[in-house]
Amino acid sequence: MGYKLTILGCHSATPRVNAHPTAQYLEINSRHFLIDCGEGTQRQMRLNKVGFSKINTIFISHLHGDHFFGLIGLISTFGILNREKELHIYGPKGIKEVINIQLKHSKSYVKYKIIFHELNSTESELIFEDEKVKVYTIPLNHRVYTNGFLFKEKEKSRKINISAVKKFKEIDICDYNNLKAGKDFKLDSGDVIENSELTYNPEKPLSYAYCSDTSYKPTIIEMIEGADLLYHESTFLTDKEDLASKTGHSTAKQAATIAKKANVKKLVLGHYSSRYKEVSLFKKEAQEVFKNVSLAETGRVFSSK
Amino acid sequence: MGYKLTILGCHSATPRVNAHPTAQYLEINSRHFLIDCGEGTQRQMRLNKVGFSKINTIFISHLHGDHFFGLIGLISTFGILNREKELHIYGPKGIKEVINIQLKHSKSYVKYKIIFHELNSTESELIFEDEKVKVYTIPLNHRVYTNGFLFKEKEKSRKINISAVKKFKEIDICDYNNLKAGKDFKLDSGDVIENSELTYNPEKPLSYAYCSDTSYKPTIIEMIEGADLLYHESTFLTDKEDLASKTGHSTAKQAATIAKKANVKKLVLGHYSSRYKEVSLFKKEAQEVFKNVSLAETGRVFSSK
Repeated sequence: MGYKLTILGCHSATPRVNAHPTAQYLEINSRHFLIDCGEGTQRQMRLNKVGFSKINTIFISHLHGDHFFGLIGLISTFGILNREKELHIYGPKGIKEVINIQLKHSKSYVKYKIIFHELNSTESELIFEDEKVKVYTIPLNHRVYTNGFLFKEKEKSRKINISAVKKFKEIDICDYNNLKAGKDFKLDSGDVIENSELTYNPEKPLSYAYCSDTSYKPTIIEMIEGADLLYHESTFLTDKEDLASKTGHSTAKQAATIAKKANVKKLVLGHYSSRYKEVSLFKKEAQEVFKNVSLAETGRVFSSK
Repeated sequence: MGYKLTILGCHSATPRVNAHPTAQYLEINSRHFLIDCGEGTQRQMRLNKVGFSKINTIFISHLHGDHFFGLIGLISTFGILNREKELHIYGPKGIKEVINIQLKHSKSYVKYKIIFHELNSTESELIFEDEKVKVYTIPLNHRVYTNGFLFKEKEKSRKINISAVKKFKEIDICDYNNLKAGKDFKLDSGDVIENSELTYNPEKPLSYAYCSDTSYKPTIIEMIEGADLLYHESTFLTDKEDLASKTGHSTAKQAATIAKKANVKKLVLGHYSSRYKEVSLFKKEAQEVFKNVSLAETGRVFSSK
């Protein structure tokens, strides 16, 4: 339960020896997602012990190379590993053509089914939902059509207060599901025991907001309000605020401003431009606005536990 | 002068932590070529100090992912590095569509010109020639249309025998080009000095044959006869000869048989299947047929010097 985010790459533009383009592996409420997939992601998955078979759903924020050039290789590797399970890919319109044209020319039609969910709305949408998790798009401002993604645990069931329940011989283990769902219990005498006497409040559902790449966009604040973890790109520092705006990116200070205004619990920065030799400068700048800041590093894990 | 081959990747199928898919950097007679470009090639180029600006010509053998999934990333990186020089790409028909569709969707049209030379002949062709080097295709047998490439230094000019030349005061430094071209020299007296008295024979032109991926194909022997260096894939050992044949690959023994029959100077093996934990077995098997065998390893250099 809770979340565990593994950074598989967090640098911008070109892959370098120790600077890997964006990819993240998110485990949230027992679900497993890959977010973006720059070149070399599958190697980083192996290095960071991410099980290939765990990935059934991939979210691609936008079609700039540093966010998706590793996707075709991963799809191909799934095929070589004899994958049979369906793979769902959420990404901008065009992603299906990009992948299918490569599969066609390499004559390596994979045996498993790939289901593309092409996105083109500029409004936030609920794009994924199962019994554990909901995922919404966070429309961003970049040079090409780009979405961030908000991952939300669904409301959890109440927890049984065992010592309270044991006081009533009529309450059987078969009744627990009703109690977890919040129902009161009627004793044989006809008396009703209120649910709150028999259960504890459930854990608060957690949420993770992933925002890359984007210029400063305050309209996302409402969407990500109170998120437990926010990844927000910070390609530049304030010294390059104009360049950030021009290229559709953010400064560390702008990322921190979003974090503060959205009242998130924790901010993770990444997508650093290679012009900065010292990434600690990003943290320093952000902390002038918002205290709980961490730097994404390849291999680093952020966990709710 | 001569050749220097740097292995940037030599493993088959999927990229793994320490097993990189096929790519080679060849310097031959002052020319610089990239051969195949699996995922992660640009990172291997950086690790092995291959200058990005040296690459003006790329040869892609076939459109299986482990031979070209790194190409779009490299092209994109050239753009980010503000490349202005033309880039020539030789590869199977389809490669232009694969690359252009990705550039289109990422809206990252590069500023330099990419010239695609799409190949579809099943006969050997001269596909590249300048004043230093010729490159021929070596049609191979694989599951998709595949070429190897034969790189040949052009005939070199004769070398001036300085001590012999100095005996004749009429011979000026301006005459050296004629002497290098093999011309005799006429003295003021009318006597003719034969070129062979004034020059040494030039160095023998060197050649490198790259053959990956292919099943055993003896018809290539005539083409690569006497090559100074042969890279021939050996995905399998003889224990999997049937599988090799079925999948369009070769065994180490078959690669060595080609090397022996073609009378090459040296054989380099690669494209090892991950099923073999010990690559030394490939060398051992090949040496039962042909002695001068080396194993490709990422970062290993094979040089004529």
